[in-house]
Amino acid sequence: MNISPLAPAQFPDLPEIAGVTFATAAAGVKYKDRDDVMLAYLAPGTAVAGVFTRSATRSAPVLDCQEKLGSDPAAAAAILVNSGNSNAFTGGRGVSSVQAVTQAVATATGAPIDRVFTASTGVIGEPLPHNRIVAQIAELNSALSATAIKDAAHAIMTTDTFAKGAGMTVNINGTDVKIAGIAKGSGMIAPDMATMLVYIFTDAKIAQRDLQQMVSRLNAKTFNCITVDSDTSTSDTLMVAATGASGVDVTGDADFEHALNSVMQDLAHQVVRDGEGATKFVTVGVTGAQTDADARKVALSIANSPLVKTAIAGEDANWGRVVMAVGKSGAAADRDKLSIRFGDITVAENGWRAPNYSEDAASEYMKNQELEIGVDLGIGDGQSTVWTCDLTHGYISINADYRS
Amino acid sequence: MNISPLAPAQFPDLPEIAGVTFATAAAGVKYKDRDDVMLAYLAPGTAVAGVFTRSATRSAPVLDCQEKLGSDPAAAAAILVNSGNSNAFTGGRGVSSVQAVTQAVATATGAPIDRVFTASTGVIGEPLPHNRIVAQIAELNSALSATAIKDAAHAIMTTDTFAKGAGMTVNINGTDVKIAGIAKGSGMIAPDMATMLVYIFTDAKIAQRDLQQMVSRLNAKTFNCITVDSDTSTSDTLMVAATGASGVDVTGDADFEHALNSVMQDLAHQVVRDGEGATKFVTVGVTGAQTDADARKVALSIANSPLVKTAIAGEDANWGRVVMAVGKSGAAADRDKLSIRFGDITVAENGWRAPNYSEDAASEYMKNQELEIGVDLGIGDGQSTVWTCDLTHGYISINADYRS
Repeated sequence: MNISPLAPAQFPDLPEIAGVTFATAAAGVKYKDRDDVMLAYLAPGTAVAGVFTRSATRSAPVLDCQEKLGSDPAAAAAILVNSGNSNAFTGGRGVSSVQAVTQAVATATGAPIDRVFTASTGVIGEPLPHNRIVAQIAELNSALSATAIKDAAHAIMTTDTFAKGAGMTVNINGTDVKIAGIAKGSGMIAPDMATMLVYIFTDAKIAQRDLQQMVSRLNAKTFNCITVDSDTSTSDTLMVAATGASGVDVTGDADFEHALNSVMQDLAHQVVRDGEGATKFVTVGVTGAQTDADARKVALSIANSPLVKTAIAGEDANWGRVVMAVGKSGAAADRDKLSIRFGDITVAENGWRAPNYSEDAASEYMKNQELEIGVDLGIGDGQSTVWTCDLTHGYISINADYRS
Repeated sequence: MNISPLAPAQFPDLPEIAGVTFATAAAGVKYKDRDDVMLAYLAPGTAVAGVFTRSATRSAPVLDCQEKLGSDPAAAAAILVNSGNSNAFTGGRGVSSVQAVTQAVATATGAPIDRVFTASTGVIGEPLPHNRIVAQIAELNSALSATAIKDAAHAIMTTDTFAKGAGMTVNINGTDVKIAGIAKGSGMIAPDMATMLVYIFTDAKIAQRDLQQMVSRLNAKTFNCITVDSDTSTSDTLMVAATGASGVDVTGDADFEHALNSVMQDLAHQVVRDGEGATKFVTVGVTGAQTDADARKVALSIANSPLVKTAIAGEDANWGRVVMAVGKSGAAADRDKLSIRFGDITVAENGWRAPNYSEDAASEYMKNQELEIGVDLGIGDGQSTVWTCDLTHGYISINADYRS
C-alpha cells in the first residue's frame, strides 16, 4: 500500500503528557510481523471523556466503554486497543471477549475494571481471539513508557497508509499545558470495517463532566465534519484523557479549548488525508443558509455526492454537480439566490453561471491538491464547514478488487 | 460506449396507443448525427399525470410542467423533449427558452400552450439553443406517426447505452387496453446531468385526477425505489398520458393498475440496468422493520453504501458491510434480532454469523449477475424493496476520467 499523496511529511514530535504511559506488542490477532495491540495507562485522577458511533449495530467494546464513561476518576485508568478484528457483530461471544480483556488489564495495571476502556478495529463478525491479547498484557504493563506514543499510533493502524498524530503546548497563566493525540482511520470505514479511533491526552486539570462537555462540543465541529464515503463505522471511538498533572485548571479556558480544537481538527483532517484512494483534500464551506443545520445538510450533500467527488478526481470544474447536490440536500434553497465558488473563482451566482466565469481558470484551479468549494445560499446566516476527499479508481480498487 | 451487460436483449415490440403519435428530429442541440428532439402528440381528451424531481434547484421545464398539470384534458396536448442540454440553472433565460419552445409547439400542433409539456436533459448551466429546436417543430408536427415510439426512445437518450421501452396489453371486461412507455436514465444523474425521463401512454379511459393518484401511488414503489448513486437530478420527470381511445374506463380497476405497475417497474429496472458502470443488478429487500418508512431507510442505506456496492462489484460476500449499513441507517434496529441473507443463503442471524454459514457458498452466489440481499430486522412488519447496481471502475471512468 503506497502512502497517501496527501499525508503529512512526517509524524510530528508530540509532547510527553505527565501521567500517561504507553506500550505496544505483537499479539498476532490478524496481522503478522507488526504490533497490533497498544496499552495506555492513565494515572489516578485522570478525567476521561468519550464520544462514540451512533450506529445501531455498534461493537461490544463501544457498548462497554459507553457504560464506563462516568466511572470515578480518582482511580487509575487504562485503554487497550487491538487492530485486525473489530469484535463487532459477534453476539454474546463478543461481550465475553471484552470481559476477558478488561479483567486482564485491570489485574495487571491495578486500575478498576470500570476504568478499563477497550477498542477493537478490523474485520467484523469474526470471534476475537482474545487469548492472544490477554497473553500479552503482563508484558505490556511492564513495558509502559512515557515516550511510546508514536508506537501506539502505529499499533492501532489497519489499512491506514500513515500513522496519525497531532499535539500542542499552550501556555495558560504562565504554565505550559500539553496535548498529544493519535488517530487511525482510512475512509469512514476501511475494507475490513476498519474504524476511526482517536485518543487524545493532556496534562490539563478539568473535571470529567466539564471535559465531556468540551469534547462533545469540539467533536461536533471536527470529527463530525469529515466524510470520506458517507459510511459510518460500528466502532468509531474518540476518547480524551486529562491527567491534571500540570496543575493548571482549564475549566472554561478559551485558550485550552482552542488548542484542543486544533489538535482534534488536525487529526480529523489527517483521517481525510488518508481516505481510501484520496488524491485531493477538499474543504466544503456553506454560508447563507436558513440555519446551521441546513448549511450542514448542504455541505454533506456536496461532500458525499459520488458525482461531485468523481468530478474532483477528474479535475473537472463541474459546478453543475454542485447545483445538483444543493438541490437534493433537503435544505431550504432559492435557486436564484445561490452562488458557488471554487477557491476565489465565482462560478455561479443568481441562479446562473457567473457572467465573467472562465472555464480555463476554473479548470486550472481544479489541478490543486487542496481545494475549496464555497456555496452561499443567500437566504440566512446559517453556516457549516466539512472536509472530504475525492472518489477515485483507488477507492474502487481498495474496496472491490481485493477480497477482504 | 459499450452496451451495459445488464441490458435486455432487444427493444420490445410496443403496442400502438390510439390517440398518440410521435416524431423525432436532429436539431443539433449538442449531439451530432443523431435525433435529439422528440415530439409526442396527444389527441383531445387525453388525461395527463406527472411526477417530478423534488430538487430545490429543478429545471425551468420541470417548473413549467408542474404548473400545467391540472390543465383541461378536453384539448389536445403535446410533449416535446430535447437531449443534450438540461436547461437547468439557466435563470430567466431558461424560462424564456421554455416559453419559446412551448409557443412554437402550441402553434404547430394546435394544442393550447397550457397543454404543452417539455423536458430537457443534458448539460446544466448552458443556455438552451432553443432556436434550433423551434426550427424543427413544423417538420416534426407533419411527421407525426403512430409507430415511431422506438425512435422517440432513442432521441431522448444521453449517456444511456440502450433505449428503454416497456409495454403491456391487458384485457378488461373483454376489451384490450394497451400501455406503452419509454424511459431514459443512466445513473440517477449521468455525466452531464442527464436525467431520468419517463413517458408512458395508454388508451385507457380515466379522469386526470384519478390517473394522477394512481401514478403517484405506483411511482412510490417503482421509480422512487431505484438508486444508482444516490444523486438526484434537477430534471427527473415521469408523465403518463391516457387517451381514453379504448373506451374502457379503468377507474379503480386493479388489473389496469397492476399492468401499469408492471410497465413502470420494468422501465425502472431498465434504468438501473443502465446504471453507469453497472455489472450487477441488485434487489435489496428489507422486512421486519418497525415501519415501512424504517424499512425503506435501511434498504436505501444498503443500496447507496459505496462499501456495499464495491463489495458487490468485487463479488465479495462481505455481509459485515451490510451490518454497517443497517447500523448507520437511522432506523430502529436490534443487533441481536437482525438476520441477513444473500439469495437463499442465510449469512447472519441473531446478531452473529449464521452457524452453518459457508463462505464458499456465499462467494459462489456473488458471481451471479442478478443478486438479492435480504435483511430481516425481526422487530415489526415494515417492509420495503429497492433496486440498485454495483459501484465499479466503470462508474469512476465515466464520471472522472473524461471531462464533461
